[in-house]
Amino acid sequence: MTDGIQQPAAPAFVLVRPQMGENIGAAARAMWNFGLDHMRVVAPRDGWPNQSAVAMASGAGRLLDEARLCADLPEAIADSTFVFATTARSRDLTKPVFSPEEALRETARRIAEGQRVAVLFGPERAGLENEDIAQANAIVSVPVNPAFPSLNLAQCVLLMGYEWRRATGDVEPQVTEMAGTPWAEAGEVEHLAKHYEERLEDAGFFFPEHKAQSMRTNLRNMWSRMPLTRADVQMMHGMLRQLLRRPPRDDGTR
Amino acid sequence: MTDGIQQPAAPAFVLVRPQMGENIGAAARAMWNFGLDHMRVVAPRDGWPNQSAVAMASGAGRLLDEARLCADLPEAIADSTFVFATTARSRDLTKPVFSPEEALRETARRIAEGQRVAVLFGPERAGLENEDIAQANAIVSVPVNPAFPSLNLAQCVLLMGYEWRRATGDVEPQVTEMAGTPWAEAGEVEHLAKHYEERLEDAGFFFPEHKAQSMRTNLRNMWSRMPLTRADVQMMHGMLRQLLRRPPRDDGTR
Repeated sequence: MTDGIQQPAAPAFVLVRPQMGENIGAAARAMWNFGLDHMRVVAPRDGWPNQSAVAMASGAGRLLDEARLCADLPEAIADSTFVFATTARSRDLTKPVFSPEEALRETARRIAEGQRVAVLFGPERAGLENEDIAQANAIVSVPVNPAFPSLNLAQCVLLMGYEWRRATGDVEPQVTEMAGTPWAEAGEVEHLAKHYEERLEDAGFFFPEHKAQSMRTNLRNMWSRMPLTRADVQMMHGMLRQLLRRPPRDDGTR
Repeated sequence: MTDGIQQPAAPAFVLVRPQMGENIGAAARAMWNFGLDHMRVVAPRDGWPNQSAVAMASGAGRLLDEARLCADLPEAIADSTFVFATTARSRDLTKPVFSPEEALRETARRIAEGQRVAVLFGPERAGLENEDIAQANAIVSVPVNPAFPSLNLAQCVLLMGYEWRRATGDVEPQVTEMAGTPWAEAGEVEHLAKHYEERLEDAGFFFPEHKAQSMRTNLRNMWSRMPLTRADVQMMHGMLRQLLRRPPRDDGTR
C-alpha cells in the first residue's frame, strides 16, 4: 500500500478488534466484490496473520496480505481526514448520523478533494464501543428492521462497499432499458399489425360485426404498447406464416 | 400466508433450486433484517423442511415455517404480475436490466398499485439458468467488481432487501400509466406461452432441430417481456384458435 504517497482513490475499511478469522476473510471478499482493497485491522483477537481469514478470503487474499495491522484505533485512523463509524443500533452520542448512501457519497466527495476517509466496523459480538465512536466524525446507520437488527460484520461491509460503488457511479449504466437493442421502428410494427389483421380477417376473427371495429382497435393498441425488438417482429411474422402453412386436415377442423 | 386474500405489502423472494440449507437459513435472516418475510422455495436440493436451514435462520425461523415450497418455477410465480431475475453476470437475453435500486423502486411502485411482485434468486453454484430468466419480466444486475463477481446467495438477498427498505422509506403510490389495469399473472402468461408453443410445434415452426431450443427460449423470453393485460392474453388465445380454425383450402396452400 502507498498511503500518503499516491492520491487516495478509495476509503480504508477499518475492522476494529475483529474476533473470528472467518469474518475477516468474508469482509475481505465483500470489499473486493465492490472493488475496495484497502483494509486495516485493529487488534484482531486471534493475532495476525490469521489462517482462517486467509482460507475464507479465497480470491480476495491479497487484501489480507496488504492489510495494515494496527495496535489501536488512533493508530489506524491517524492519517484520515474524515472517519465514519458504522452502527446498527442508534446511539445517544451527539454526532451526525448518515444513511449508508449519504455516507459513501460524502466519502466519494471528500476523496475527490484529496482527503483520506476511513470507515470503522466494530467487533462481531457487540459492535463499536462508544469510546470508538467518539473518535469518528460521523455515524453511519444501516436502516435494518428494528425487530431484527442482526447484520454480521461481512454484511455490514458488503452494504458499505455496495454504496461506495454506487456513489462512484462510473460502474452503473443507470437505466439500462435494454440499451443497444435494435428496437422495431413504428413502420415495422405497423406492418406487423397489418399482417396479423389481414390474416385474422381471413380467418373470421373480427366477429360479430358490431364488435369488429373495437376488436381491431384493441389489437392495434396492443401492438403499439409492446416493447418489440426487430427480432421480435421477425419472429411474429414467422409464427403467423408458419401457423397458416400447415397442411389442412381432411375434415377441415383442428 | 394469505396470498391473494390480503393486499400484498411486499415482494416474494423466490429461492430457485437452492443447494445448501445453511444458505437458505442465511437468506431468511437477510430478508428479515430488512423486514421481508415472504419466501418461496423451488425444488431445494436437500428436501424440505431442512434442519440446516432452520439452525442457521435463528431468529428468522418463522420465514422458513411459512415459506411456500414449490415444485417448479412456474408454480412459484403463477400469481405474480411482475417478476425480476437477479444475476451477477450479464446475459445476452433481450430483457430490460435494472439496477437494484431501480428494481426495488419499481417493485414498491407496482405493489402500491396492488400488483404482486416476485424476485428470483438462483442456485449458489451457477445462478439462474437462461430458461429461468426467460420467465422473468426483467433482470436485476448487481454492479459488482467484474474481476470478482462472487456474491453469495444470502448477500444477494441482503442487497435486494436493503434496496426494498430504502425504496419503501419514502415511497408514494405514483400516478402511472394504466393504473388499475388488470395485468396478467405469470401463470396466465405461462399458459399463453405454452398454447403458442404447442401449436407452433404442430406447425413445424421450431426448425431446424439444432436451433429449436434457442427459438423456444427467444419466444418464451418475448412473452415474459411484454406488458400483457388479462384482456391481451385472452385476445392472443382467441387469435391463435381462430387462425387454426379456418377451413383448409383445396390446394392445401395459403
